[in-house]
Amino acid sequence: MKLLKEKIKEDGKLIGSNILKVDSFLNHQIDPKLMAEIGKEFAQRFHKEEITKVLTIEASGIAVALMVGLELDVPVLFAKKKKASTMDGRVYTGKVESFTKNQVYDISVAAKYLNEDDKVLIIDDFLAMGQASQGLIEIVEDAQAKLAGVGIVIEKGFQPGGKQLRKQGVRVESLAIIESLEDNQISFA
Amino acid sequence: MKLLKEKIKEDGKLIGSNILKVDSFLNHQIDPKLMAEIGKEFAQRFHKEEITKVLTIEASGIAVALMVGLELDVPVLFAKKKKASTMDGRVYTGKVESFTKNQVYDISVAAKYLNEDDKVLIIDDFLAMGQASQGLIEIVEDAQAKLAGVGIVIEKGFQPGGKQLRKQGVRVESLAIIESLEDNQISFA
Repeated sequence: MKLLKEKIKEDGKLIGSNILKVDSFLNHQIDPKLMAEIGKEFAQRFHKEEITKVLTIEASGIAVALMVGLELDVPVLFAKKKKASTMDGRVYTGKVESFTKNQVYDISVAAKYLNEDDKVLIIDDFLAMGQASQGLIEIVEDAQAKLAGVGIVIEKGFQPGGKQLRKQGVRVESLAIIESLEDNQISFA
Repeated sequence: MKLLKEKIKEDGKLIGSNILKVDSFLNHQIDPKLMAEIGKEFAQRFHKEEITKVLTIEASGIAVALMVGLELDVPVLFAKKKKASTMDGRVYTGKVESFTKNQVYDISVAAKYLNEDDKVLIIDDFLAMGQASQGLIEIVEDAQAKLAGVGIVIEKGFQPGGKQLRKQGVRVESLAIIESLEDNQISFA
């Protein structure tokens, strides 16, 4: 997605050769118009899939997922990192290993919002090791719903998450795939 | 806002006489079209204020804030509950006391995204004790920005947060004010 890549080039900040900060428009400050364009792009790529639900994980997946849900005219569901005190009844759970925070945590959604008739599009802002996507896939499987695919705003192509998902047969659509962040340079695949 | 009140009546679930669950359309599963309408409503109420930034708190404020930002054509900024490992540089911080979770935690935003030239609209999904709003106001004051007001989707009018904010001279716009949840009945003010 050209607009996104331009924005990454323009506003992305590199920290070493591994971290790309895009918190000026994606995951801290958010550019609503860019989110709307991203939503349209995902909707266009997945429009034949008869999606019934968009699934993401709090917090930085929510903005993107909302715009996709708006375009596809389906509800958006976000998995929670802590079980809310008001989340009663049965839940579907997935495990996520965070490498940056060096911990494993559960994510969960209320079971009543996902079932075997659903066809789910998973959306997230970043794909690196693929742990969040794997946790969300666990939830989809737990609910016996169908998985239409995974839509990612920025994939770090030099980390193994995307390759692993595709090896599992999952359709992964990434709007920008970073090939390398070395030599203080953002290179797209 | 009529559409919202109807939705609350239809889909809201009462737990005792204090908790209203709206996680089927607002803070777990999200209804994107309703969010778009809510965004328009807030934009209309605050359109004379020359807002430069919409400020909210992760996670359930993000969807609403995004639609407001889209309508007003300004960036959205969400305060984080934990300082991210990649949040470098100076931050503005506010304190939030959570009564449901019985803890006090810091919320923060990167200082570079808020300054004295900003006119800020604070958006959140719920207002009860007003702690999240107060924490966000602290951040606005810390940044020496101007506060245009606070926009709330659902205010629990029988709890003191809204009254306290208005006493401080803050303009509070709530799209639905709940007067009582007693007798297994949702009554609006």
